[in-house]
Amino acid sequence: MARDTLVDSRQEILRTAARLFQQRGYDATSMNDVAASLKLSKGGLYHHFQSKDEILFEIMNHAMEITEDRVLAPVRGIADPEARLRALIRLHIEVVLSPQDREITVMLHENHPLPPTLRRRINARKKDYIHFVESLMAEVQRARQCKGSVSPRAAAFALLGMINWIYQWYKPEGSLQAHNLVPQFTELVFGGILA
Amino acid sequence: MARDTLVDSRQEILRTAARLFQQRGYDATSMNDVAASLKLSKGGLYHHFQSKDEILFEIMNHAMEITEDRVLAPVRGIADPEARLRALIRLHIEVVLSPQDREITVMLHENHPLPPTLRRRINARKKDYIHFVESLMAEVQRARQCKGSVSPRAAAFALLGMINWIYQWYKPEGSLQAHNLVPQFTELVFGGILA
Repeated sequence: MARDTLVDSRQEILRTAARLFQQRGYDATSMNDVAASLKLSKGGLYHHFQSKDEILFEIMNHAMEITEDRVLAPVRGIADPEARLRALIRLHIEVVLSPQDREITVMLHENHPLPPTLRRRINARKKDYIHFVESLMAEVQRARQCKGSVSPRAAAFALLGMINWIYQWYKPEGSLQAHNLVPQFTELVFGGILA
Repeated sequence: MARDTLVDSRQEILRTAARLFQQRGYDATSMNDVAASLKLSKGGLYHHFQSKDEILFEIMNHAMEITEDRVLAPVRGIADPEARLRALIRLHIEVVLSPQDREITVMLHENHPLPPTLRRRINARKKDYIHFVESLMAEVQRARQCKGSVSPRAAAFALLGMINWIYQWYKPEGSLQAHNLVPQFTELVFGGILA
């Protein structure tokens, strides 16, 4: 059990489990696999998490916390709606591209079956985020006196799609990285491809 | 075996398997489950597909065929780049929202581990689609003499993200349906939220 004390946080367990789930599939990964990969005893793992469901839920919950702490919290203080939207786009892309959090945040969108109660808690947090973005879109359009043909709701879903889809194509060695992706996606949201 | 002859096509098997994979998870679904759900004998199922891997590959392959037949093929004949892009956005959204194909096309983006050879064949077809969209974006920008700050590649990934993400939030009873989503997403791509 000596090694157990070296696992400095539940977060290390969550990160390792998230990586295994992505590599092997959720169902194909056992609690034993997670414990072995961390050089933890099975008892040591169960001390932290009682089931694989609980681990999956905590991964998704942690992903929402990361998004709330690093995206929502910092932008709430920005008075100008347009500046707030620009900051949100930048910070959200940075979270999605963060090497440290990627394995956690990707799991948020995997469609693994969770028990209904836990699933509902995650979905409620996702909805809060969508509503925040939707209201922000509306505020930006009002500030610019734009009665555009794009509804705040469609714009919010489009933005979240653009950003959350990044993990499907992103390559650390590719030409699109945060420094050029952020201004391009921002430009696209505000003015489209003909901006 | 009498029921076997009633399964009129491999497509019915693929559709049922795709639905089970989404509901229960790929690993948690056995060949027996697929056969039982189709009222097929196990032998009848193995007559069509030799393994679960083969079924998953054929689902993804079929999803790419649907996309090529219903999106790429019809738009290739459109001479004007802007009209071609508008048609591509509309047709791709229609495929994603099609109740008949949804269970097939959603599987395209699930990250279930496939044997490397099969995975590479799917990825090659995905890449062809991305390159088509990327070239089209470049053509539209050239036609409008727009030296925008949004590269064709970033624009292509953004569009695919917007559209492929739809299955994460779409509800058949919701207010956003093809008839209002298509013009809004099109407007967004061409002119952004302030269009």
